[in-house]
Amino acid sequence: MISKSDVKYIQSLAHKKFREEEGVFVIEGVKMVGELIAEFPEKIVQLYATQQWSDENKQGMSQGIPVTIVDEKELLRISQLNTPNQVVATVKIPLQKMDLASTGLTLVLDQIQDPGNLGTIIRTCDWFGVQNIICSLDTVDAYNPKTVQSAKGSLLRINIQYLDLCSYLISKKGTPVYAAVLEGKSIHDVHLKESAILVIGNEAKGISKEVMSLTSHAITIPSRGKAESLNAAIATAIILSSFLK
Amino acid sequence: MISKSDVKYIQSLAHKKFREEEGVFVIEGVKMVGELIAEFPEKIVQLYATQQWSDENKQGMSQGIPVTIVDEKELLRISQLNTPNQVVATVKIPLQKMDLASTGLTLVLDQIQDPGNLGTIIRTCDWFGVQNIICSLDTVDAYNPKTVQSAKGSLLRINIQYLDLCSYLISKKGTPVYAAVLEGKSIHDVHLKESAILVIGNEAKGISKEVMSLTSHAITIPSRGKAESLNAAIATAIILSSFLK
Repeated sequence: MISKSDVKYIQSLAHKKFREEEGVFVIEGVKMVGELIAEFPEKIVQLYATQQWSDENKQGMSQGIPVTIVDEKELLRISQLNTPNQVVATVKIPLQKMDLASTGLTLVLDQIQDPGNLGTIIRTCDWFGVQNIICSLDTVDAYNPKTVQSAKGSLLRINIQYLDLCSYLISKKGTPVYAAVLEGKSIHDVHLKESAILVIGNEAKGISKEVMSLTSHAITIPSRGKAESLNAAIATAIILSSFLK
Repeated sequence: MISKSDVKYIQSLAHKKFREEEGVFVIEGVKMVGELIAEFPEKIVQLYATQQWSDENKQGMSQGIPVTIVDEKELLRISQLNTPNQVVATVKIPLQKMDLASTGLTLVLDQIQDPGNLGTIIRTCDWFGVQNIICSLDTVDAYNPKTVQSAKGSLLRINIQYLDLCSYLISKKGTPVYAAVLEGKSIHDVHLKESAILVIGNEAKGISKEVMSLTSHAITIPSRGKAESLNAAIATAIILSSFLK
C-alpha cells in the first residue's frame, strides 16, 4: 500500500524541476530495475513493486533496499510507461564528478532536444566505451523518463555533465575538436587523435555558431542517397563506430 | 471548412486496417508536405491547410492539387502531431513494385516493432542510397504516423515491401546474406559482396530462428563498453556505413 503523498512525489519526478530539487529520478520495469539492483544498489532510494515481483526478488530486499508493495492500480498511477511493469524505483541522480582532464574520446552534445535521441546516444556510448558526455545547458535532461527508457541500463554507467560548452571547449584548448556537419571531411579519411572531443549538434539546427567557432575539424558522414540529413543519434553512432574501430 | 466525414476519414487513417483498405496514409507539417509537393505531387490525394499556408503556397495549388482550408481547431482534430503544423496531406500508399532481382544491398527487417525505429531506418537507407527494404509480415507498418514522422521525407523514396522472409530468402539463394547478431565476425573485417542482403532482427529478440538458418554470414559491431546491445536503428546505420564506405 502506497501513501497518497508518495504517489504525488513519484508523479512529480516526471518534471525536471522536481527531479533537480530532489536529486532523484525514476527507473521502471523488471529488466532495468533488475540491472539497477545488481549494479548500483546504493543508488536506490525506494522500490515500489507488486507482491509477485517482491516474492520473486527476495534478494534485492535482503540488501536492505526498502520495498513498498503496490497493487496494479497503484502501479498504474506511479508509472510513466504505457504498460507498467511490476516495479518502479526512485533513484539518486549521480553527482557530476567527471574528470574533465580525462583522456580518450569525449562526446559533446549541443542542444539535443529529443529525449529518445539522448537516451539512444547514452546507450551507444556505453556500447563503444565512451565514458564522458558533456551536454550544453539547454540539452534535454538526461533523467527525463523517455531518456531513461531509451538509455536502457546505460544511464548510470556514463558520466553526464551539463556545462556551458564554450567555457568547456576553451578550457580544453589544444585537444582536437571534431564537429559533425553536413559539409566536412569524410569520416573515413579522418584519423582520430588519442584524446579528442566530438561535437554533435541540434536535430534541426546543427551546431551553434559559437560552439562551431571553437572546433578544429569539420567531419561528415558521406552520403550516397537523397536524405537531407541523419538523425542525431544515428550520426553519433556512425562516427563513434568509425572513430573507435 | 472540412466536413465531419472528412475528419472521421483522416482520423481513421491512424489505423493500419483503414490505411490498407483505402491505400492512403497521412503526411503532415510544412516541411514534409513541401517536399511531397515538390517531389511526388501525383501521390497527393488531398491537402487540408490553414488559410495562411494556402496563401503562401499558391504553387502547390496551381498544380491542381485539391486544398481544403481548415482553421486551427479543425487542424487539431485531424492532426496526429502534438503541435499540428499548418497542413495535412492524404497520400496514396505506393504500390509495391520492387524489382526483387535488383543488385546492390537489400535491407531485410525481421519483426521490427518500434515505428520510430522503422522510420529512422528508412531515413538512414535514404542517406546511404539503399533503395530496397524487405519487411517481415509482422514488422510494424511503414505508413504508421510515427514512422512517417521519423522517416522525414524519405518514406516515398525507398521501396518497401512486406513479404514472408523465408520464402524471399530462399528465392535469393546464392546471394550472401549477412545477419546482424551479438556474436559474429567483426563488421570491420567483412568485405561486402556487390550484391548482398543485410538482416536486422527484432529489438528484443533479434533474428528469428527460421530466418537465421537462411543467412550465410553472422556479423557483429565490436563493443568496447558494457551496454548489452544497440538500438536496432543504430545497429543498422553503423553496419550500412561500414559496408558502403
